[in-house]
Amino acid sequence: MITLASDFGSVYPAAMRGVLARECDARLEDVAHDLPRQDVRAAAFWLRFVLAEFPPAVHLVVVDPGVGTDRDALVVRVGDHALVGPDNGVLLPPARALAERQGLGGDDGTDADAGADADGAVEAFVLDHPEPDSTTFHGRDVFAPAAAQLYEAGVDHLPSLPDLDPTDDPVDLRLPAASVDADGADGEVLVVDDFGNAITNVPGDAVRGRESVSVDGERVPVGRSFAAVAPGDRLVTVGSHGYAECDVNRGRGAEAFGLAPGDAVRFDF
Amino acid sequence: MITLASDFGSVYPAAMRGVLARECDARLEDVAHDLPRQDVRAAAFWLRFVLAEFPPAVHLVVVDPGVGTDRDALVVRVGDHALVGPDNGVLLPPARALAERQGLGGDDGTDADAGADADGAVEAFVLDHPEPDSTTFHGRDVFAPAAAQLYEAGVDHLPSLPDLDPTDDPVDLRLPAASVDADGADGEVLVVDDFGNAITNVPGDAVRGRESVSVDGERVPVGRSFAAVAPGDRLVTVGSHGYAECDVNRGRGAEAFGLAPGDAVRFDF
Amino acid sequence: MITLASDFGSVYPAAMRGVLARECDARLEDVAHDLPRQDVRAAAFWLRFVLAEFPPAVHLVVVDPGVGTDRDALVVRVGDHALVGPDNGVLLPPARALAERQGLGGDDGTDADAGADADGAVEAFVLDHPEPDSTTFHGRDVFAPAAAQLYEAGVDHLPSLPDLDPTDDPVDLRLPAASVDADGADGEVLVVDDFGNAITNVPGDAVRGRESVSVDGERVPVGRSFAAVAPGDRLVTVGSHGYAECDVNRGRGAEAFGLAPGDAVRFDF
Repeated sequence: MITLASDFGSVYPAAMRGVLARECDARLEDVAHDLPRQDVRAAAFWLRFVLAEFPPAVHLVVVDPGVGTDRDALVVRVGDHALVGPDNGVLLPPARALAERQGLGGDDGTDADAGADADGAVEAFVLDHPEPDSTTFHGRDVFAPAAAQLYEAGVDHLPSLPDLDPTDDPVDLRLPAASVDADGADGEVLVVDDFGNAITNVPGDAVRGRESVSVDGERVPVGRSFAAVAPGDRLVTVGSHGYAECDVNRGRGAEAFGLAPGDAVRFDF
Repeated sequence: MITLASDFGSVYPAAMRGVLARECDARLEDVAHDLPRQDVRAAAFWLRFVLAEFPPAVHLVVVDPGVGTDRDALVVRVGDHALVGPDNGVLLPPARALAERQGLGGDDGTDADAGADADGAVEAFVLDHPEPDSTTFHGRDVFAPAAAQLYEAGVDHLPSLPDLDPTDDPVDLRLPAASVDADGADGEVLVVDDFGNAITNVPGDAVRGRESVSVDGERVPVGRSFAAVAPGDRLVTVGSHGYAECDVNRGRGAEAFGLAPGDAVRFDF
Repeated sequence: MITLASDFGSVYPAAMRGVLARECDARLEDVAHDLPRQDVRAAAFWLRFVLAEFPPAVHLVVVDPGVGTDRDALVVRVGDHALVGPDNGVLLPPARALAERQGLGGDDGTDADAGADADGAVEAFVLDHPEPDSTTFHGRDVFAPAAAQLYEAGVDHLPSLPDLDPTDDPVDLRLPAASVDADGADGEVLVVDDFGNAITNVPGDAVRGRESVSVDGERVPVGRSFAAVAPGDRLVTVGSHGYAECDVNRGRGAEAFGLAPGDAVRFDF
C-alpha cells in the first residue's frame, strides 16, 4: 500500500497517482490533499495523527515549500513503514508516531518529550536523484517514482538500495510543548480542523475530568463530547488526537474563541 | 466492498480508511466526506440518492452530531447490503432505497408513502460496543472497526453476531412530503447541490411535461435539461433523483430563486 | 483501470463510481471532480496535463454543459487508452497528449501546432445509446455504463462494438496559441490552479533561462522555482505542464498580478 498526502488541492495529486499506478502495483490510499498550504508544522501534526492508523505502507508526503531549492529528498524507515518526501521536517513526527504504534519507542511529538525519542527505530536516508526537467513538481517527478521504487523493493530492503545514503541529521521538527502546572496551562493553537475546532498543544490529561477551565480569562465547561453543552455554546474538550481543543457544539470554536493557528492560549484551572 | 460517507471534511476520513485497511481486506469506496455538516436529514437525502447505485457492500455512514451522548450505534441489514452508523435516523432512508432497488419493497422516502414501507426487508440491530477512550471520534473508534468486522463476517451472518441485538424501534427519519393537487404543489427545499441547484421534495411527475410553472409567483419555464433556457436564465427541471429543482443554466439556482435548505416553495401550475 | 474526471463536486461522482463498481471489475481512480464548472476548455487543459501520466485505462470525462441537448456521446481510442464523454471538444486535447506519450504522434495542443496532429492515432466514435429517463445526469446513466462496457470489452475491441459508429468530425477544441517573437510574447491565462498560480499559454521555452521579463509593463524575476524569490514576492516560472505562469512565492499569483482565466497577458523580454 502507498498512502498519499499533500497540500496540492486538485488535479496535481492525480498526476502522482498516475505515476504510481504506472510504475507499481500498490494499492493507493489518499490521506488528504488539502493539508494547510505550505505549512510543514500543521502537516506534521495531521500526519502524526493519521498515518499511524494505517497498516504497513509507503507514505508519500509532499508539503514542500522549498521545491526546486537544494533541500534534500528524504526517505525514512520505521519498522514496516517507510515515508518519502522533502527533507524539511514533515516526515519525522509521523515517523515517531509510527514507531510508538509499533512498540518501537516514540514520544509525544513535542520538545518536552524529546528525551524519549525513538531514534533507534527511525532510520533516515537521503535520496540521490537526478534533477528533473521541471523544477516545481517533485511530487510527480521525484517522490512518486521513489515511492513506487521503494514499494517494489520492499521496506525491508531499503537500506541496501543504491540511491539511498544513510543520514544522521535529517531536518527535524517538533511541535512546541505546552507548559502545565497546578494552576493552568500555557499552550498554543496548532491547527483548526474542518469543524472549526481550535486544537491546542495542551495535553488532554491536563483538562480531562475537570468541570470547567478559564480560557483566556473566561470560564468554559469541559465536556466529554460536543453535546455536553447546548448547540451554539462553547466548551473545551479532548479531541481524538489527545489534545485539548476549543469547540462550539454544532458551531466553529476557532471563531467563537477568536483563535487561529499559532495563537497562544491560556487555560486556568 | 465498504463505502464511506461522512461530514468530516479532510484528514479525519483517512483515519477511518486506515482502520478499515488495517482490519479487513475490503475494497474501500468514498461516497462523500463533505455531506452538509451535522445535518442528518440532508445526509439521508443524499445517501438515499447514491448508495443504491453500489453493488452489495457495507456502508459506513458517520454524520453524528450526538457523538459521545448515549445514542446507540446501529447496524441495518437490507438484502445483500448492510449499513453501520449512529442511531439518529440517517441510515433508514438509504436502507429503504436499497430495499426498493433490490425488489424488497421500499418507498419514496417521505411521510406520504410510509404505508408502503419495506419493514420486512430492513432489519435493525443495536451494536453493543465498549466506550472508547476518545469520546469524539466514534467513526474511527466504533463504526469503522464494526464495519470491518461486519465485512469479514459477511452480511449474511449479521443476525448471529454476538454484539448485535435486534431492535424494533431504531430512530427513523422521513423526508417531508410535498402537497400536490391540480393547481400546484407546496413543497420545501431539501438540499442545495454543488451546482447551486435548489432541490425540492416536489415529485418530478408533478412538473414533468408542463411548459412552465410559477415559482413563488413568478413564471418560469420547465425544461428537460439546463440547456432548455439561455445561459443565466432560470428554469425548473427534474433532477436525476426524481425531484423538481430550481436551477439556472450555467448558474446557481439557489441564489437566483433566493432559496435555501428548509425554505418553503410553492409551484403554481 | 477506469479514471473519472468531472466538474460535479460532491456526491454525484459517487453515483458514477457505484455504477462502475456494479457493472465491471475495473480499478477506479479519481482524477478530479472539481474541474472548473462547465468550462470545457479548462477541463481540456487539465486533462491534457494529467491523463497522460496514467497507465492504459478507460478515461471517463464528464464536463457537460450540453447535457440533455442533442450533442452526441463520444468514445475516442488512442493506442491502449480510450476516453468516453460528451462530444463537446473536451476529449480531444487529452487524447492527443496520450498519443504523444505513446509515441503515436500528437502535438502541443494549440492552434499553432495543428499541422503535427496525431490524426491517425486518434479514432473517434459516436456512441449510440437509448435516452435515459433522467435528462440531467448522463454521467450516471450513459457515460459510466459505457465506460464499464468498454472496459469489459477491452480497448482493442472498441471498433467492432455494435453501438459505436466511427466519426471523422468530432467536436474539436484547441487551446489558443501564444504569439512569441524576439521582443516578447502575447498570451492568455488558461487556468488558475489551487495555489493561485496564473497559468498562461506562453511556452516555457520562451522565458526559461531569462533573468526577468516584464509582465504587462512591470519587471518580474524569472525563477526556476517559487523559492527563487522571497516569500510574498512575485515571479514568473515554468510550471510542471511546461507553460509560463505568474506566481507568488507562498502566495497567490493570480491576485497579485490581477489575472483571471481568459485574460490577455503580455511578457516583454
